[in-house]
Amino acid sequence: MNPDPRPDLITAAQQFYQLGWMVGTAGNISARLADDTIWITASGKSKGKLTAADFVRINMQGEIIATDNPQNRPSAETSIHQAIYTLFPAARACYHVHSVEANLVSHLVEGDSLPLPAIEMLKGLGVWEKNPRVAMPVFENYLEVPKIAAAIKLRFQTTPPDIPALLILHHGVTVWAPSPEKAEHYVEVAEYLFRYLVASHQAGLN
Amino acid sequence: MNPDPRPDLITAAQQFYQLGWMVGTAGNISARLADDTIWITASGKSKGKLTAADFVRINMQGEIIATDNPQNRPSAETSIHQAIYTLFPAARACYHVHSVEANLVSHLVEGDSLPLPAIEMLKGLGVWEKNPRVAMPVFENYLEVPKIAAAIKLRFQTTPPDIPALLILHHGVTVWAPSPEKAEHYVEVAEYLFRYLVASHQAGLN
Amino acid sequence: MNPDPRPDLITAAQQFYQLGWMVGTAGNISARLADDTIWITASGKSKGKLTAADFVRINMQGEIIATDNPQNRPSAETSIHQAIYTLFPAARACYHVHSVEANLVSHLVEGDSLPLPAIEMLKGLGVWEKNPRVAMPVFENYLEVPKIAAAIKLRFQTTPPDIPALLILHHGVTVWAPSPEKAEHYVEVAEYLFRYLVASHQAGLN
Amino acid sequence: MNPDPRPDLITAAQQFYQLGWMVGTAGNISARLADDTIWITASGKSKGKLTAADFVRINMQGEIIATDNPQNRPSAETSIHQAIYTLFPAARACYHVHSVEANLVSHLVEGDSLPLPAIEMLKGLGVWEKNPRVAMPVFENYLEVPKIAAAIKLRFQTTPPDIPALLILHHGVTVWAPSPEKAEHYVEVAEYLFRYLVASHQAGLN
Repeated sequence: MNPDPRPDLITAAQQFYQLGWMVGTAGNISARLADDTIWITASGKSKGKLTAADFVRINMQGEIIATDNPQNRPSAETSIHQAIYTLFPAARACYHVHSVEANLVSHLVEGDSLPLPAIEMLKGLGVWEKNPRVAMPVFENYLEVPKIAAAIKLRFQTTPPDIPALLILHHGVTVWAPSPEKAEHYVEVAEYLFRYLVASHQAGLN
Repeated sequence: MNPDPRPDLITAAQQFYQLGWMVGTAGNISARLADDTIWITASGKSKGKLTAADFVRINMQGEIIATDNPQNRPSAETSIHQAIYTLFPAARACYHVHSVEANLVSHLVEGDSLPLPAIEMLKGLGVWEKNPRVAMPVFENYLEVPKIAAAIKLRFQTTPPDIPALLILHHGVTVWAPSPEKAEHYVEVAEYLFRYLVASHQAGLN
Repeated sequence: MNPDPRPDLITAAQQFYQLGWMVGTAGNISARLADDTIWITASGKSKGKLTAADFVRINMQGEIIATDNPQNRPSAETSIHQAIYTLFPAARACYHVHSVEANLVSHLVEGDSLPLPAIEMLKGLGVWEKNPRVAMPVFENYLEVPKIAAAIKLRFQTTPPDIPALLILHHGVTVWAPSPEKAEHYVEVAEYLFRYLVASHQAGLN
Repeated sequence: MNPDPRPDLITAAQQFYQLGWMVGTAGNISARLADDTIWITASGKSKGKLTAADFVRINMQGEIIATDNPQNRPSAETSIHQAIYTLFPAARACYHVHSVEANLVSHLVEGDSLPLPAIEMLKGLGVWEKNPRVAMPVFENYLEVPKIAAAIKLRFQTTPPDIPALLILHHGVTVWAPSPEKAEHYVEVAEYLFRYLVASHQAGLN
């Protein structure tokens, strides 16, 4: 009925850590169950070595309803996950990572979005057009995370994004998907696009 | 008689995935059996975690003749593999991957081919000359994949390529070889050459 | 009472080696026990393949009090570890690695410190401010390592650093932390910041 | 008496392959036994998957005296290994790899040598000086490998190199050492220096 998504989250985090996208204790990932509760990484954990005890289960009010370790607090960025799950009823997983390239493309933002390159890989975010002109929504970074969550809600309620991903300036990317597997794909594709953008500026090839 | 090539394909895809050349569900790889049927990756699979059930076996008419999972559809780019196997009777494996560098070198194409650097590594694609001047054939990317396949057939029937590799613009490289092992080598060498080209532009060393 | 920290040190060194931060026999890492003795890597060991026999235990006078291999000498840079443990009573681990990027940022030093970018990842070094202006203390490299240790002591006794990390010019970064786990995080975050700085100069994105 | 060095060679090649320095079938590595015979990789093998059957044992006249696979031929570059072992009686291992960076630094050669950066890591090649000015000897690449071997012999007989490493233009680095373990260190350090040189040009930090 409610299969435990933590093994999938642990495997994904390990992969992201090895790629340098969750160094230190950076980033946070979650999955939503059929009863609308969420398993999310607890604050301050090494993402390359997560165990089932490094997660908390919260309801949509943010209350902890289960955890294997009573000292766990939910990720400091839980409110962003809640905003995403509220906005997108089909979303079952929400992943947030911090790559160097995601930070560097902050310098390529135009207005409040990041133009993406028109390459085949865009299909990995669901864009199947010839010469697509697609941009990733971008949000200011605030020390007070609920302010970021509020800005995401406000904007997406009126202007839904073209792709299931957003960028927080000088901070990192957040994706959402109907399954943990697809969320992993979206992170990989978003980071691929960031690497392309950075390398193309490094090489003067654009 | 007809040994199953899927274990080789699975291992190669895992390696390519770890190198960032098959992120999301990008890329597709195949091998041809003695009876001219082809095992090819099914559409939409995570390339880092393939199992034997993630392939379909098709004949040269493109009809599915075997698969462990009835929901599988052949890769969306099967027509390119068919074109390659038709053009090159000795080809037993055909691999297509999507690296960042293969996309970036699209900006270095001259006419309809990519000049390759005259470095020792070219021997890995079968070029044994002093100061070789060799280029990789390049093709337009179309949403309609059979148009790409048709262009490949048309060009190679009259002008066979110097090396067993071609580039699709803003998309990625395709190689073919007499065995899965050699196809893996050719992918590695092609990607090495792309990394060299991109890094040399990044460093102004050329 | 005095649990053996060597397994943690071995795992951290293996990870750093794989990332290219401890190539050859470069770098040295240590942990302090409750009795103020230190386990530190012996000189000249391959950091990707450490065993418990590749460490020496020394007291604060630098005398060897235990080792599984009588031929071991303490790391040539032991005096720096001793300076750090003397300066920071809460430090239980001290890690020193040599990445390419840590060497390259030597060219970005202003006076005697390296300005760090104001990105979210700074939180990983304990900086929780809006638009933080933080710098990493930088020291000259000397062939005579005790001269480096003396310079560190002299400066930090009067001017404690803002973050638990310092850079030695054209050489590498040293971090300290209340546990081996946190020291590993600090190395990862410091190296992330170096990668960001180098890549931002490579791309002209700053 | 004559312990078999092949396991060490296999492990080193696997590591180099994973780092992208022995892609395709590029590179070749050898070790010399007490009786002055040499185990060297056979021609055309995948360096990431070597087994004991992928080597040949030759004497100093280049005659095969042992191999587990009668189809094996010695590496096409055996004459370079023979030159090194003849020139340096203490050399017990000789490793040759092809990184992208080793090829790119060909553009930084001055005359017949490559100036190395004066960074701490030079100690890994045995250079313990303040502000060292050291250069790596560089040789032309010839299709006829014995011509390269002859040039190495001619030059080193009269002008021994400062460091146990040489570069062949647009081809790659060769190191030698008193043990396979040390040869692995020297490769790692040489490649570190090449990465530093390339990245410093990419970033304009030099």
